[in-house]
Amino acid sequence: MFAPYLEAVRTRAPLIHNITNYVTANDCANLLLACGASPIMADDPAEVSEVQAVCAGLHLNLGTLHTGTVPALLAAGRTANTLGHPVVLDPVGVGVSALRGRTARQLLEELRITVIRGNLSEIKTLARGSGTAHGVDAADALTEATLDTVLPLVKDLARRTGAVVAVSGGIDLVTDGETAYCIRNGCAMMRQVTGTGCQLSALTAAFVAASPDYPLEAAAAAVCAMGLCGEIAQSRLAPGEGNAALRGRIIDAMYNLTPPQLEEGARYETR
Amino acid sequence: MFAPYLEAVRTRAPLIHNITNYVTANDCANLLLACGASPIMADDPAEVSEVQAVCAGLHLNLGTLHTGTVPALLAAGRTANTLGHPVVLDPVGVGVSALRGRTARQLLEELRITVIRGNLSEIKTLARGSGTAHGVDAADALTEATLDTVLPLVKDLARRTGAVVAVSGGIDLVTDGETAYCIRNGCAMMRQVTGTGCQLSALTAAFVAASPDYPLEAAAAAVCAMGLCGEIAQSRLAPGEGNAALRGRIIDAMYNLTPPQLEEGARYETR
Amino acid sequence: MFAPYLEAVRTRAPLIHNITNYVTANDCANLLLACGASPIMADDPAEVSEVQAVCAGLHLNLGTLHTGTVPALLAAGRTANTLGHPVVLDPVGVGVSALRGRTARQLLEELRITVIRGNLSEIKTLARGSGTAHGVDAADALTEATLDTVLPLVKDLARRTGAVVAVSGGIDLVTDGETAYCIRNGCAMMRQVTGTGCQLSALTAAFVAASPDYPLEAAAAAVCAMGLCGEIAQSRLAPGEGNAALRGRIIDAMYNLTPPQLEEGARYETR
Repeated sequence: MFAPYLEAVRTRAPLIHNITNYVTANDCANLLLACGASPIMADDPAEVSEVQAVCAGLHLNLGTLHTGTVPALLAAGRTANTLGHPVVLDPVGVGVSALRGRTARQLLEELRITVIRGNLSEIKTLARGSGTAHGVDAADALTEATLDTVLPLVKDLARRTGAVVAVSGGIDLVTDGETAYCIRNGCAMMRQVTGTGCQLSALTAAFVAASPDYPLEAAAAAVCAMGLCGEIAQSRLAPGEGNAALRGRIIDAMYNLTPPQLEEGARYETR
Repeated sequence: MFAPYLEAVRTRAPLIHNITNYVTANDCANLLLACGASPIMADDPAEVSEVQAVCAGLHLNLGTLHTGTVPALLAAGRTANTLGHPVVLDPVGVGVSALRGRTARQLLEELRITVIRGNLSEIKTLARGSGTAHGVDAADALTEATLDTVLPLVKDLARRTGAVVAVSGGIDLVTDGETAYCIRNGCAMMRQVTGTGCQLSALTAAFVAASPDYPLEAAAAAVCAMGLCGEIAQSRLAPGEGNAALRGRIIDAMYNLTPPQLEEGARYETR
Repeated sequence: MFAPYLEAVRTRAPLIHNITNYVTANDCANLLLACGASPIMADDPAEVSEVQAVCAGLHLNLGTLHTGTVPALLAAGRTANTLGHPVVLDPVGVGVSALRGRTARQLLEELRITVIRGNLSEIKTLARGSGTAHGVDAADALTEATLDTVLPLVKDLARRTGAVVAVSGGIDLVTDGETAYCIRNGCAMMRQVTGTGCQLSALTAAFVAASPDYPLEAAAAAVCAMGLCGEIAQSRLAPGEGNAALRGRIIDAMYNLTPPQLEEGARYETR
């Protein structure tokens, strides 16, 4: 059932505005191009409203957050809200500093966020003000063992914020507070490539921008697509290759991903 | 006739100062190293004049422009002008915001720009205050069908600014207002790699810095070299590879490009 | 004797806080993941102390330095000093501008730096206020011919600062002012990949954070590991590949590097 969401991205080629960190911006841009969307990065408060106005979606990412960028996050978000463009929030490292925590709360209070996309540690921090912070790449484990405990917490955050919440981990969860997709695509090695989470957030913005009436399904399709590309990429690794090769091959897999391939490769159940 | 311009870069190894966006800075640096030049990135107003003073050329790029960087663009440009170093301006997304439009105009008014390098949409915005803006990677089409209409507009911009103008598209145009090189190197897939335009601007700065008395020919040689590397890169793609692989292979092709290869592969006519 | 230092990184998986330039941040992050550590990049003065508090080491890098980042370098460094975390300083381009020179001096005066890691030109600038600056990638030559002249200068800087000093060049030197490791790993082509120096600085932070009681040996092990990965990467290059391929293969080599491989491949003597 996810094929149409990839088709929509390829057909509509949404322009996605990213206010994001400088560590993984290049990968976000190339992944957006690979899926059929287009990227623009712009974070100066003086121009973000104009930039968002010519775009179809917005990706707000708190990695390498600067105090001076907070007004840009808010201004771009307000323009997106006014124009009905979807907004994806990636609260990178939100538990690590007061600046990131305060900013995430402010964005959730002052904007309508369409999708919150983070790892379990980040989502827990948003949900109940706690979580373990081990950098920006690791997280509390979201596994078969913890799924039943985690699910109500994530659904509750979705209901309270009105946003679809997408949690990345050993299993991925995507829920609007009612339906939850439990997704079993992806591979552990993706965590050893910096920015696969940021890329997924950018991709989610593209998928939701191309199918704005179906944010839950479009976000779940993006999560399946990213995980599937990780699997394809890993299966193509040659001996002696490592996380740098995987990084490129994930983007290449997205470039070549077909809707039928996504349909067939997506592994999920609903709860 | 373009072989000597590549030879000059390899021999003189010009140090190029880039004030550019954080999305594609790494690729610009590696492409400069690949062609035989050296990169330095520095954008704080407090140091750009000193940095430019030890360099041979300047690449000013408006991607991810910050208000606080505008004084750096001007200060570095003034130093380059004083010392007779070539200045390449890449007006990334100039039609998208007032900040970028105002900054581009200010740079053109207050500095002597050696080469303006952009896509057709950006060049049209500079030429007549209009153009369609679809992100930073797409553009109005510069094709056989539109060439005759576009050429006078671009020549006029070159004459009015005193700069060589290089327009990237399906066909590339490089003109000083009198002679125009119409270049048919490159491949469409290069547009799906973020930053090939930024890289070409950095490369142009290296070529012009190595042959400062021949800005038109050196810029045209850079455009041919970049397009040719795109063709070589595409011809080397394996099944399953995509835009991430192309990205690396373009830089690798530049690393291995020989002057005779450029001579033989350059496809252009003058008008 | 260097195998245990790599084992320690793999076992302890130190989280390394990087305040670094936007040109090579992605490569630093992926190399840290490749060696078994984790990265976080954060440079806003408002959050760096909190970020450093959850980390095990700090990498301060002066590339693309911004005036507004100087308080962040100092605040993160003070927190690291208070908590006993190692601090690696990479004085990128320190001879190029007064801003970088002044900042490097201030960091050396106000912080306890564990390791200073730079090329010979940068180290000379710190040691005696001179040096030739040709961008950030090139340097005075550190070769068999200049080794005897350079060694006392570098040892003296180590003694005066109390830091281990690591100098990169044709030969690498790592010294605490008494013992000096002269290391002959690596290959010249690494200089044509932007950011191999920055990556080595990040790697050094990881190695020293994992073995904080042995900063000299851990830093020397990091230098050997990086050089060895450069050799492995070069030996795996296919015809037509260049510096972009080398860039990825270095990180992949680190991902696959085993302690016995490091033990066997490290080429050094002490003086």
